[in-house]
Amino acid sequence: MNNYRTYFEQNREQHLDELKEWLSIPSISALSQHKDDMIRAAQWLKDSLERAGLEHVTLNETSGHPILTADHLHAEGAPTLLIYGHYDVQPVDPLNLWETPPFEPTERGGKLYARGATDDKGQVFLHVKALEAILKQEGKLPVNVKLCIEGEEEVSSPNLVGFLDANAEKLAADAVLISDTSLLERGKPAISTGLRGLCSLEFKLNTANTDLHSGSFGGGVPNALHAIVSLLNSLHDEQTGRVRVDGFYDGVLPLTEELREELVKMQFDEAKLQSDLGLGSLFGEEGFSFLERTGVRPTLELNGVYGGFQGEGTKTVIPKEARAKITCRLVANQDPKDVLDKIIRHLKEHTPVGAKIEITPGETAFAFNIDPSHPFLQKAADAYEAVYGVRALFTKDGGSIPIIEAFSRVLNAPVVLMGFGLPDENLHAPNEHFNLENFDKGLLTLVQYLKTV
Amino acid sequence: MNNYRTYFEQNREQHLDELKEWLSIPSISALSQHKDDMIRAAQWLKDSLERAGLEHVTLNETSGHPILTADHLHAEGAPTLLIYGHYDVQPVDPLNLWETPPFEPTERGGKLYARGATDDKGQVFLHVKALEAILKQEGKLPVNVKLCIEGEEEVSSPNLVGFLDANAEKLAADAVLISDTSLLERGKPAISTGLRGLCSLEFKLNTANTDLHSGSFGGGVPNALHAIVSLLNSLHDEQTGRVRVDGFYDGVLPLTEELREELVKMQFDEAKLQSDLGLGSLFGEEGFSFLERTGVRPTLELNGVYGGFQGEGTKTVIPKEARAKITCRLVANQDPKDVLDKIIRHLKEHTPVGAKIEITPGETAFAFNIDPSHPFLQKAADAYEAVYGVRALFTKDGGSIPIIEAFSRVLNAPVVLMGFGLPDENLHAPNEHFNLENFDKGLLTLVQYLKTV
Repeated sequence: MNNYRTYFEQNREQHLDELKEWLSIPSISALSQHKDDMIRAAQWLKDSLERAGLEHVTLNETSGHPILTADHLHAEGAPTLLIYGHYDVQPVDPLNLWETPPFEPTERGGKLYARGATDDKGQVFLHVKALEAILKQEGKLPVNVKLCIEGEEEVSSPNLVGFLDANAEKLAADAVLISDTSLLERGKPAISTGLRGLCSLEFKLNTANTDLHSGSFGGGVPNALHAIVSLLNSLHDEQTGRVRVDGFYDGVLPLTEELREELVKMQFDEAKLQSDLGLGSLFGEEGFSFLERTGVRPTLELNGVYGGFQGEGTKTVIPKEARAKITCRLVANQDPKDVLDKIIRHLKEHTPVGAKIEITPGETAFAFNIDPSHPFLQKAADAYEAVYGVRALFTKDGGSIPIIEAFSRVLNAPVVLMGFGLPDENLHAPNEHFNLENFDKGLLTLVQYLKTV
Repeated sequence: MNNYRTYFEQNREQHLDELKEWLSIPSISALSQHKDDMIRAAQWLKDSLERAGLEHVTLNETSGHPILTADHLHAEGAPTLLIYGHYDVQPVDPLNLWETPPFEPTERGGKLYARGATDDKGQVFLHVKALEAILKQEGKLPVNVKLCIEGEEEVSSPNLVGFLDANAEKLAADAVLISDTSLLERGKPAISTGLRGLCSLEFKLNTANTDLHSGSFGGGVPNALHAIVSLLNSLHDEQTGRVRVDGFYDGVLPLTEELREELVKMQFDEAKLQSDLGLGSLFGEEGFSFLERTGVRPTLELNGVYGGFQGEGTKTVIPKEARAKITCRLVANQDPKDVLDKIIRHLKEHTPVGAKIEITPGETAFAFNIDPSHPFLQKAADAYEAVYGVRALFTKDGGSIPIIEAFSRVLNAPVVLMGFGLPDENLHAPNEHFNLENFDKGLLTLVQYLKTV
């Protein structure tokens, strides 16, 4: 591996410049005004993969943003890996909290700051450069490789399942390799063997056909904000932190002593997390640790609530309308569509007198689980050990990659989650960044994996 | 009065054009970017009063927006009236709900639509044109008149009390005349003998030093939106509609049978109100009618609540911060500063675990009450009767004009509230308008009052 160490050191500046160029394209899939940026970001990746030596690099049109595919299939007898990732990023508001603009990538203290730096452009870029390195150094790849990089992961991949179904044969592989997760902490690599599922919805409440003056009407008419506060408050038990939607926990498996011990073994530092994030306290479902709450327990989170006057000063208005956005992280055998139905029923049943509710259901995704004894996972742990000097732990991850369950099902292949992010890199928040220590080690780990799997 | 009818008919188009010109100046006192517009609006009024024949028309500088004063003091032996009003207007958001832009005054169906049309530029304008009419027709006024028109009523008049104190002698009058209230309904004039007091605050809750990804952290850390929903929900009893802040109702007088009967006499049509405003139901404190709830009972209203993602689509964020704006309408002997303290104490005591609260107290104003048997009020009722054919009712109004109590106290004079708005004219809301029937009748009523008081 020493020649690779030298190669990546020599090309480091060039590689980072390229990544910065990609990160400077605001490929926010959720916002329609960035449609052209999505195309630019996809095209940039296509050019980069072609220069790296990949073949059949194609932007596949969808009803949303294009899906990039490519391959390199000349390693007869060797296994075939399908590499999945995404070139879209999260929205950036609140913009004023970014220390440097989200689409002006900036290095500070060994970290690269930009929206998408770690989720997921930075990690996709590691694969591009690992493949390029092997092809440049050795003229061929030790395995067969296919790529499938989408632009709608941050909006729950509405087109990818259909694309997988339609191209199941073309995308067939012995394993799916994804870098879109995190180390447990700095220096402690992790391979996720569980991801939470997801369901989402938004709704609005209306209480009148116009905003009203609180002088003339205050105290005598419904207030949409009072109604939404009451409705949203009904979703949780404030004391136990449990979700109060009837049947929400159906399908959640009881926590086994084995898994509890496995999680304890990780020696996760809750006090450090609390201090790093400036939390007054940790908070969650009674009777569970942080790793249990985020790894194997479901949650219902308010992501946005708004209504009435938000400007400077006072406005004595009784708002006619208020809105909320909700997502759930789901586990084990929870059926996301069923959970969504139950929340919708709860919201309708608890809508206060005088308010009308209008609910827009969002996307759903099943949770994912894989047995860590699978050889493709064991070899991934070996590859981490060769570079980090520490064998990767097999963890349960709180996040969702909605498409994983579909990959696993449609392609009937194990999914290997080799992530290189860190948990505090502000994914989906201002000041997202990528620790360049894991940029460097990630390149080497991927080369190692490709050469030994 | 027939010559005045003719005069106002002949000049109607000219008068409305002038008012539209004034209404087209966006004099939003709450927003600092409109500081120059405030000056323009004040200057417009100054020019208009000078053309009308008023004397000593002066823009008095304050630390905020200027206060206009003027007078005409040549009616020896006659009483002196101080006319108060305001040239500032409320903010206009949500802008997309306006059928025509708020600062492009538009006539539709006998109504003039614009921000400030009825609150309060339109009503101040009636005084300007009533005075001008008498001076043009008769060369002199039947009473002595002083004017005091401020630009900070919508931000709770931070500079007016000091100005009154400093100019008590100059502003001394036998009665204060204000047009900033409403008829009871179309064709039913009303003179308010009670106005509610006010107190306001805003606050923010913080739960972390950064927004967090709901995948990695959801279920394991506090969510600022969960915290604010819980805190805000603690302010009301959902069943009885009562405010749950300890001591909130201190100083509220029990409803007497006399007052209850007086309010019943108004034959207020609750079903019509509900249908006009598209309310699913009326709602408020248990055991009281709409007129009682808005006239003689206090209320605590959420005017704005916001945190997290408000854009298109989904964002799986756990917001670190959430904010709320609150105002109370107060009655009788409630001390607004004391109420504010009690709410602040409640908020601090009920702040959920893991959240930090930061409270910004706002303005306060006492409630106002006057005995309807006062001659200045009885003559106002006569003037309405002469023009509307119906004697004005003496009502309790739900709104607050924070400065009224100060006028009454500093100048030791009765305050006569002769309003010409209608309750459904969307004060403080999109599509504010002024019914021109009351524009026409208001001019005549004011002339009648000035000539007979």
